[in-house]
Amino acid sequence: MDVFELADLAQDLLRRIEDRAVRVHCLTNSVAQPITANALLAIGAVPSLTADAEELSEFVDSADALLVNLGTPTQERRAAWVAAAVQASGSGKPWVLDPVMVDRAAGRLDAAQALLTFRPDAIRCNAGEAARLSLDGFTGILARTGAEDRISQNANSASLSAGHPYLAKVTAAGCALSAILAAFLAVGRDDPFAATVAGLASFGAAGAMAGKRAEGPGSFAVALLDSLSTLDAAAIRETVTAFTDDRKETAQ
Amino acid sequence: MDVFELADLAQDLLRRIEDRAVRVHCLTNSVAQPITANALLAIGAVPSLTADAEELSEFVDSADALLVNLGTPTQERRAAWVAAAVQASGSGKPWVLDPVMVDRAAGRLDAAQALLTFRPDAIRCNAGEAARLSLDGFTGILARTGAEDRISQNANSASLSAGHPYLAKVTAAGCALSAILAAFLAVGRDDPFAATVAGLASFGAAGAMAGKRAEGPGSFAVALLDSLSTLDAAAIRETVTAFTDDRKETAQ
Amino acid sequence: MDVFELADLAQDLLRRIEDRAVRVHCLTNSVAQPITANALLAIGAVPSLTADAEELSEFVDSADALLVNLGTPTQERRAAWVAAAVQASGSGKPWVLDPVMVDRAAGRLDAAQALLTFRPDAIRCNAGEAARLSLDGFTGILARTGAEDRISQNANSASLSAGHPYLAKVTAAGCALSAILAAFLAVGRDDPFAATVAGLASFGAAGAMAGKRAEGPGSFAVALLDSLSTLDAAAIRETVTAFTDDRKETAQ
Repeated sequence: MDVFELADLAQDLLRRIEDRAVRVHCLTNSVAQPITANALLAIGAVPSLTADAEELSEFVDSADALLVNLGTPTQERRAAWVAAAVQASGSGKPWVLDPVMVDRAAGRLDAAQALLTFRPDAIRCNAGEAARLSLDGFTGILARTGAEDRISQNANSASLSAGHPYLAKVTAAGCALSAILAAFLAVGRDDPFAATVAGLASFGAAGAMAGKRAEGPGSFAVALLDSLSTLDAAAIRETVTAFTDDRKETAQ
Repeated sequence: MDVFELADLAQDLLRRIEDRAVRVHCLTNSVAQPITANALLAIGAVPSLTADAEELSEFVDSADALLVNLGTPTQERRAAWVAAAVQASGSGKPWVLDPVMVDRAAGRLDAAQALLTFRPDAIRCNAGEAARLSLDGFTGILARTGAEDRISQNANSASLSAGHPYLAKVTAAGCALSAILAAFLAVGRDDPFAATVAGLASFGAAGAMAGKRAEGPGSFAVALLDSLSTLDAAAIRETVTAFTDDRKETAQ
Repeated sequence: MDVFELADLAQDLLRRIEDRAVRVHCLTNSVAQPITANALLAIGAVPSLTADAEELSEFVDSADALLVNLGTPTQERRAAWVAAAVQASGSGKPWVLDPVMVDRAAGRLDAAQALLTFRPDAIRCNAGEAARLSLDGFTGILARTGAEDRISQNANSASLSAGHPYLAKVTAAGCALSAILAAFLAVGRDDPFAATVAGLASFGAAGAMAGKRAEGPGSFAVALLDSLSTLDAAAIRETVTAFTDDRKETAQ
């Protein structure tokens, strides 16, 4: 895949997300909820956010993908992570794990490791968080994001440069990206690795576009949502500054 | 009431909200809290948001109106919905029910039906949610919002077109509207039906104004708050594109 | 200290916050979380927000300062306030108390009084909240903010005018300011009183700068974050319209 094919794939998947009004159920931390829901709406997806034991199963069941983000846990949310991951895994629904700040608390790291049992389709995190995870036997996609995004799965890898430094100055921008990857996985079942790269390229392109309009991190966050709603192949092609696809094998 | 009278009424009620610094206690979902509080502040109202059993009664008691929104429930919030609704109903304080996503979970629908026992002054929801509610015996106001807003109460009905498609791309915009309706009901006790229509017209006008400035859903949400803070009769008159008032009876 | 020295001090402390990537653990209410985290990120600090009993101690331990804000309490958050305050106080880590709306609920006032036992380095609140607190024996800094900010500690006092009226129209702007003061205290250990005044001046300057760009409270909140990220001594000097430093004694 070259950057032209990547941009075309991203545009195609974005259209499918919007056409199907893909539902993403997000178990996510309290600070991330508004930007996560707004980022999903901006690309045409439909967010839901409940962690309530009485209704969680119904929401996961009627969703197309699941996000489990470990920030600001509560007793209720801890139970919901496991229940939803079991349900998604058991029904073949794609789900993304975002192991927020597992490098700051031992219990979070334990929770993340336990959730790997339920085989997330992808993990999205930063390099510091990834370094703490024991990924022996993990066969899903690992997306480590930062100035350069690095995507790997078994013998395959890819890297991508897009985005803008302000992404690190907007709270929960990475959490929102994880939710967007869940939407891409919902419509990219035939090649999840490529769908993940396309999701990262789309978000990075929106970040780059927002960076051109922003006067600081506040206006950047606003422009990021605007840009997510107008993404197309041309915009993605122009803003992805480096892309390597080192896959040894491709999806069947 | 024609659109000129509606716009004048809306402006009058907005002035009363600001002059009295109307307090609206909002039991609302976690993702809706920032936009709801900011929308209330923009029109001169004062939000409070606690669901804590130890202090809920004091906050409801010192509020002028109550919102009960069923999103992202917790054990604590479920108990608070009932306690606050009982208190508001018993003391004649206006309250608004927002039955978010009752079409996605059976337990939410049950909770909404149970809350109807405590006679909300108004229900604000979308058409899909309204279709699931059993409203036999409900004598309050039903405001179904969307591209066209439809307001009904007993034999009376009205409809209204204002707003902007981006309202559906901003998370919890409808939830914020429900809180604004609670503020309008607090100052429009002599004719709650008209106050509800005026609240919808005001929010729709702000949406239409925001749509002119917006470059996407992010800048739209920002402009919506700006517009809510500068609403007047002229702006409302100009942006309400259709209005019918089919009331068989008017308030005494 | 005159306004030139104040502005230079503020710039110096802002640089230290950014250079050290000061970590502020925020136990804060649900509506305040996004703006609080974004305000800290804008000045180069690093927020964390968990109130979870299993991991709270680790987060406080690895933080440079603590905020305890009493809004939207839950059972879990009440326990976290005390545990974190005890931990911060015991380890000499600076912490700020924000007694939100203690004038609306007796239990909150009790909670605030109980937390004074653990000697917050500073209290940030509005005049109505301050009036309800019994501060006999409190030797920390009291920062009452509003159109004029008044800072006092024992026989020392100072006052400051900066900011913009829209700060009262943005939900949780004061809560975000309290978190920023915690960051300033983390890098201003040699003179906490001066660091508090510098934090207030910085936030007020950002508010004044934002007010020049804003078309309403929505765009003001966005511009506030932008302005926080570009503050320097010149901007602070130009926007602080009045400053008196009536200290009888200065830090040793």
